[in-house]
Amino acid sequence: MQGHRTFNWFTDGVTAPAGFAAAGIQAGIKPAHDKKDMALIFAGRPAVVAGVFTTNQVKAAPVILCRRRIKKSRLAQAVIINSGNANACTGGKGSADAESMAATTAKLLNINPSLALVCSTGTIGVPLPMEKIKRGIGLAVKNLARNGGGEAARAIMTTDTRSKQIAVRLRIGGKKITIGAMAKGAGMIAPNMATLLVFITTDAAVAPAALQEALSSAVAMSFNCILVDGDQSTNDTILCLANGLAGNRTLTRQQPGWKIFQSALTALCQKLAYMIVEDGEGVTKVVRLIVKGGQSRAEAEKVARSIARSPLVKTSWFGADPNWGRIMCAIGYSGAAIDPEKISIDYNGRLAVINGQSAGLPPKNLTKIITGKEFTIGIDLHRGRASYSMLTCDCSLDYVRINADYMT
Amino acid sequence: MQGHRTFNWFTDGVTAPAGFAAAGIQAGIKPAHDKKDMALIFAGRPAVVAGVFTTNQVKAAPVILCRRRIKKSRLAQAVIINSGNANACTGGKGSADAESMAATTAKLLNINPSLALVCSTGTIGVPLPMEKIKRGIGLAVKNLARNGGGEAARAIMTTDTRSKQIAVRLRIGGKKITIGAMAKGAGMIAPNMATLLVFITTDAAVAPAALQEALSSAVAMSFNCILVDGDQSTNDTILCLANGLAGNRTLTRQQPGWKIFQSALTALCQKLAYMIVEDGEGVTKVVRLIVKGGQSRAEAEKVARSIARSPLVKTSWFGADPNWGRIMCAIGYSGAAIDPEKISIDYNGRLAVINGQSAGLPPKNLTKIITGKEFTIGIDLHRGRASYSMLTCDCSLDYVRINADYMT
Repeated sequence: MQGHRTFNWFTDGVTAPAGFAAAGIQAGIKPAHDKKDMALIFAGRPAVVAGVFTTNQVKAAPVILCRRRIKKSRLAQAVIINSGNANACTGGKGSADAESMAATTAKLLNINPSLALVCSTGTIGVPLPMEKIKRGIGLAVKNLARNGGGEAARAIMTTDTRSKQIAVRLRIGGKKITIGAMAKGAGMIAPNMATLLVFITTDAAVAPAALQEALSSAVAMSFNCILVDGDQSTNDTILCLANGLAGNRTLTRQQPGWKIFQSALTALCQKLAYMIVEDGEGVTKVVRLIVKGGQSRAEAEKVARSIARSPLVKTSWFGADPNWGRIMCAIGYSGAAIDPEKISIDYNGRLAVINGQSAGLPPKNLTKIITGKEFTIGIDLHRGRASYSMLTCDCSLDYVRINADYMT
Repeated sequence: MQGHRTFNWFTDGVTAPAGFAAAGIQAGIKPAHDKKDMALIFAGRPAVVAGVFTTNQVKAAPVILCRRRIKKSRLAQAVIINSGNANACTGGKGSADAESMAATTAKLLNINPSLALVCSTGTIGVPLPMEKIKRGIGLAVKNLARNGGGEAARAIMTTDTRSKQIAVRLRIGGKKITIGAMAKGAGMIAPNMATLLVFITTDAAVAPAALQEALSSAVAMSFNCILVDGDQSTNDTILCLANGLAGNRTLTRQQPGWKIFQSALTALCQKLAYMIVEDGEGVTKVVRLIVKGGQSRAEAEKVARSIARSPLVKTSWFGADPNWGRIMCAIGYSGAAIDPEKISIDYNGRLAVINGQSAGLPPKNLTKIITGKEFTIGIDLHRGRASYSMLTCDCSLDYVRINADYMT
């Protein structure tokens, strides 16, 4: 999370950079009568695009469409998004519906049909209500506005309790560059599943391969290091559009401004990732895990993921129970090679475990720390020099309520 | 679960076979004033013993003691057990305490010290209260009774809501043979973790290697195919003692009675495994997953475990929500190679998904099935002929309450 403060942050979203318009409207896909459920992002001229997608083998139709189009041309001019229906596990009709959403959007915007991308989030296995969707696209195009980012951010929410957007301004080679973004997090609507959607826009000029590299690297250090419940969606999509309006010399790895752009993009993704965990379903505590002393980064990551996924660990955090035994246990079955008698564990720097045993810290000191809304747990495996950091959260009664109660 | 009905089952426990005595007493380890917390099993003469232990790399001191002793001699005459404290992550003092429990037990029973085994379950990271433990051992020895199995079964409980025991009678080579058992399941006491302890006794004469083989095979087909929350304890221990009093010709793989013994032992473990899932923390529904059509058993197992561990799937079962999309999603990130468009899913035999899409079954038909306390979900990967069956459960509000609330 280094360097966040060196950039100029502000609370705006995908329409913060020059040359982008957006809209968020209600198409009637969600059952609620007052909820927006379609968003549109539009670039006045074709933008370079990069994407990162779910690794789930069950991929929603729009994910397949986006991957194919981006691979082919690395250019895009519009992204049409619906919430309330994931268009996943919908077979041939699902693929045709995703194509049709893109085609309708391109036609109404009068752009090359191959330049429209599509994202969906919501119910799995239910065909899209295409009549509503088509009317919705028309409405979204009509509502496109230079300051429409906020409306778009609201329209992609599912069980998110608040919309998530952020923007950053920086200078590269004397040119003012802006990056804006919106995201929806681990939310869910009935009957549905957690999906991460992130849309990033920038007026920087970036070479296609460089943009993909910058995005992949930023995602690896942000969205891939968060874990709410361990389920991985069929629809996860992160898109980044760069329209070049800032007039900077096109960024490549060789440009002097490359590092600062990469660094700003990573910091932006980390800020959004934090917002997603903080607003995770039922979350009452944000926990940063820092695993050190691994023989490899992969080993340290295994340990962090095992702790972050453990229901026993997550519920003990919810109960503000300083139960490091459950953490030792999750380390033990993580699959990483460990030496139990070398492990130390600290809470906000206070050592609770040394050499795999209690360090004698009074439980009330630990309880005080984990009663807080945010704390850091450090694990030192004392086997090597590799480390891995991960952002996670507790598992509360509300998590179960949100994910079970909507049918009752 | 084949063949359960061909045996003569009855509700007795570890003292059902000839030659075993047991006791369950209150030593004051648990904070509650009325809860038993120590049990003793005693064989009138040295018995052949086999054991299966946790694969967690963080192992409690008594697990290490039992493994070492069984490997060395394959004989045991007493097992002393405490609940309320796991004696895990307790360092050198923990090892010495486990040794001391065994030594005290052996001395009071006047048996060879190497023939005493030790098991613990409860709090991790807290030293055993050895004064109470030693007084408890004395009391347990005094209370040993030929019909003490029921008391012992109660004394090993933690958050189990009921004690678990079962016995079976069969004939091998004209001799009447009895197998009895007790278990504690995925329970928890503050601040603690889920542990599985199972103790099996039999008056059959079985060769040491054959007993170990029979137990390992039975466990693979029972306790290793259940999943409550996915956390694996530091203390899981399954012991089987065979004292030979039935007078049968010593069983080996070559004996004609071998198969029936193996089959009865497996069926007994499966019955106990079912009881453990049914009494799992907060469980309201028992779900049998049958994954078919895998290219290998390991692949089918990956799919079953991914579904059984998914918080989104488990909470949807709790909410009686026929959300097969979450199951498709969990299959997709299971790590097994799959073809999403070939997958079919059925609920109690009613097809809900064909070729990775909705089969058009009305949701209310599915809802009716998963409103029940027990149902079976079949998944066909349509890639090969391997299958894997697993018993699991929902994740309820009470699961979170049980595992979080004890500190508040």
